[in-house]
Amino acid sequence: MSHFDLPAGFRFAATASGIKKSDKLDLALICSDQPAACAGVFTLNKVIAAPLQLTKPRIAQGRCQAVLVNSGNANACTGRPGLQVAAKTSELLAQSLRIAEDQIAVASTGVIGVPLPLEPFAKGIPQLAAQLSADRAAAVAEAIMTTDAYSKIASARGRSGEGEYKILGLAKGAGMIHPNMATMLGFILTDAAVSPPLLQTALNGAVAKSFNSISVDGDTSTNDMVLLLANGASQLEPIVEGTGAAKQFCRALDRVLLDLAKMIVRDGEGATKLVQVRVVGAADEPQARIAARSVATSELVKTAFFGEDANWGRIIAAVGYSGIDLDQERIAISFNQVPVACNGLSTGPEYEAAASEVLKLDEFTVTVDLQQGSAEASYYTSDLTYEYIKINADYRT
Amino acid sequence: MSHFDLPAGFRFAATASGIKKSDKLDLALICSDQPAACAGVFTLNKVIAAPLQLTKPRIAQGRCQAVLVNSGNANACTGRPGLQVAAKTSELLAQSLRIAEDQIAVASTGVIGVPLPLEPFAKGIPQLAAQLSADRAAAVAEAIMTTDAYSKIASARGRSGEGEYKILGLAKGAGMIHPNMATMLGFILTDAAVSPPLLQTALNGAVAKSFNSISVDGDTSTNDMVLLLANGASQLEPIVEGTGAAKQFCRALDRVLLDLAKMIVRDGEGATKLVQVRVVGAADEPQARIAARSVATSELVKTAFFGEDANWGRIIAAVGYSGIDLDQERIAISFNQVPVACNGLSTGPEYEAAASEVLKLDEFTVTVDLQQGSAEASYYTSDLTYEYIKINADYRT
Repeated sequence: MSHFDLPAGFRFAATASGIKKSDKLDLALICSDQPAACAGVFTLNKVIAAPLQLTKPRIAQGRCQAVLVNSGNANACTGRPGLQVAAKTSELLAQSLRIAEDQIAVASTGVIGVPLPLEPFAKGIPQLAAQLSADRAAAVAEAIMTTDAYSKIASARGRSGEGEYKILGLAKGAGMIHPNMATMLGFILTDAAVSPPLLQTALNGAVAKSFNSISVDGDTSTNDMVLLLANGASQLEPIVEGTGAAKQFCRALDRVLLDLAKMIVRDGEGATKLVQVRVVGAADEPQARIAARSVATSELVKTAFFGEDANWGRIIAAVGYSGIDLDQERIAISFNQVPVACNGLSTGPEYEAAASEVLKLDEFTVTVDLQQGSAEASYYTSDLTYEYIKINADYRT
Repeated sequence: MSHFDLPAGFRFAATASGIKKSDKLDLALICSDQPAACAGVFTLNKVIAAPLQLTKPRIAQGRCQAVLVNSGNANACTGRPGLQVAAKTSELLAQSLRIAEDQIAVASTGVIGVPLPLEPFAKGIPQLAAQLSADRAAAVAEAIMTTDAYSKIASARGRSGEGEYKILGLAKGAGMIHPNMATMLGFILTDAAVSPPLLQTALNGAVAKSFNSISVDGDTSTNDMVLLLANGASQLEPIVEGTGAAKQFCRALDRVLLDLAKMIVRDGEGATKLVQVRVVGAADEPQARIAARSVATSELVKTAFFGEDANWGRIIAAVGYSGIDLDQERIAISFNQVPVACNGLSTGPEYEAAASEVLKLDEFTVTVDLQQGSAEASYYTSDLTYEYIKINADYRT
């Protein structure tokens, strides 16, 4: 953990409570020494898991002191009993930490539709409270994993007035071939002093360019949640909307979230490649984003990446059915610096051979130039592999 | 072919012209003895292949006598030269058959972005013209295949006045995990006498319930085309809009298209199961369709089908992110007759075990009851398997 910037005034704990059948870490706690200003982004799915039903209105009040997260069970589609369990866990934590219950956020990730037992929490929460320590963030990142191959941590620093504040991000989520329902959790902590409205604006912007611009999309699981807590423990002057300090805070936050988002794509279930799909020359940014998303989420395109096939026909077709206006005779496509299509036509077998070499890389960029304007947007995606099928066909067995 | 109903006045031919590197059939001709009334449904992709650019305005005139189809090369993203090749092939066919060039439809399917050579057509068209025969429809169905594991033919009969007419449908297309760009071609032939406007209405309705209700969706490849030709060779009285005969014609046409659509799903690339996703109790039919489509195209749901896992959590989540209004506490889900969720909650492990038995079948129905109204819609889909990845990663190599 020494290479991450740890914001002051936050402590962490994680334990193996028995929710997961293995003896892996499955229950985690993040606690701020003082109540923190907060903001959140939640799933847009109309089927909403119990922990989100409990947490959303609390975060909307703008104050949060502790976050309790379990993996192994999503507590989704569990009805009134599920909601009662979620409420009870937060009650137990409030008693244990002696903090206000409405300043506790709860989050869950794992299988849907299976009742979440209370016992692991009754046993685990006192352990977590006893364990809390400033240097256990890595254990929290590990405890929130489900199909993740590795834990995800990113950090950044920023200046406000005379001193430096820190931002730490912990996330879980492994790539999906379609933006639908792999649960994405993100917990972003900073010791900067920022008001809840500015935090929310900054978080919305950062999520749009990161978790909502990867083929693992944050907006559609029953359990997706990204929380941002700012506890002001850096003792620096508050960051005020509209100032250079606010801009710098947004940039630093963007960087942390994009780093985490790329880790999630790279950890795409079975993924072997990280691909940036960049659409340039668009009439406006929303159109660029729609086109980039259409390419990045095309299973045929992603399977071609796995096959290391510079199949630009699948890419141009995905742009074509994205719904944006276009002139097919102006489209240019390249893999890194190698042009494979120009004015909607093949540049020839030599270029395609060169592009095939690019596709052998672990990481590359596909650029689609619409030649209509000057707007651009990027989406990050992975390849679609045999391993994806294996992981998801066997998930519950 | 003896078990298919062959409409009078149509002849067929197919040859191996060398467009495919193997010596497989790759060029086919359907010819009506007399100019036929016609209707068509074409891709909505904004990137449109050359053969469609040529054929669409011709079909819009309402008359068609011959259809020339090649497989192995889509003649898409081939620019002006591609359009010239398409026009030249229709010119060669017009000369060979001595028919009006604007009554010729051309269609292509195969790889995108590779120039289509004219030579195979120059050699193949005279062979096709010499071969034309009423009993070669099966060879046409074979010649239009690309990744299809088998050819697709369906037929039906209908009554008009004193006699019977026949409808024959030939299609190609192998399932895709997402409605995007696997080319779907369908050629529907009848010896009934039907006007072009009624044909178009009937075709639109039949396509909506079949090719546009499978997870191989007809609306998004660069080359998708469904043509319906009615040559009146049955000598029966014309079928008139608004009559019982028109309704019967629509029903017969629906049946042929749905049969073909199910064959396409079952031939899903690597698919081992045919699943009907039926959404009932919806507020209206469009909402039922949106929800059914969301479930049927979810890769997580399709992968669970492959894993024979009655994972209703993935199904309810896919309904949840479909965007329709719903009350999660009213949703019921069953596999064939086995309820796995009721009022948004699990019915328990015994039912889930029974449902797992249903999932072992080659064909089953998932019913999602929204309990909001009385509208319903079905979508047909397949499972997502290792084999899909293999076929599409290696497609061009």
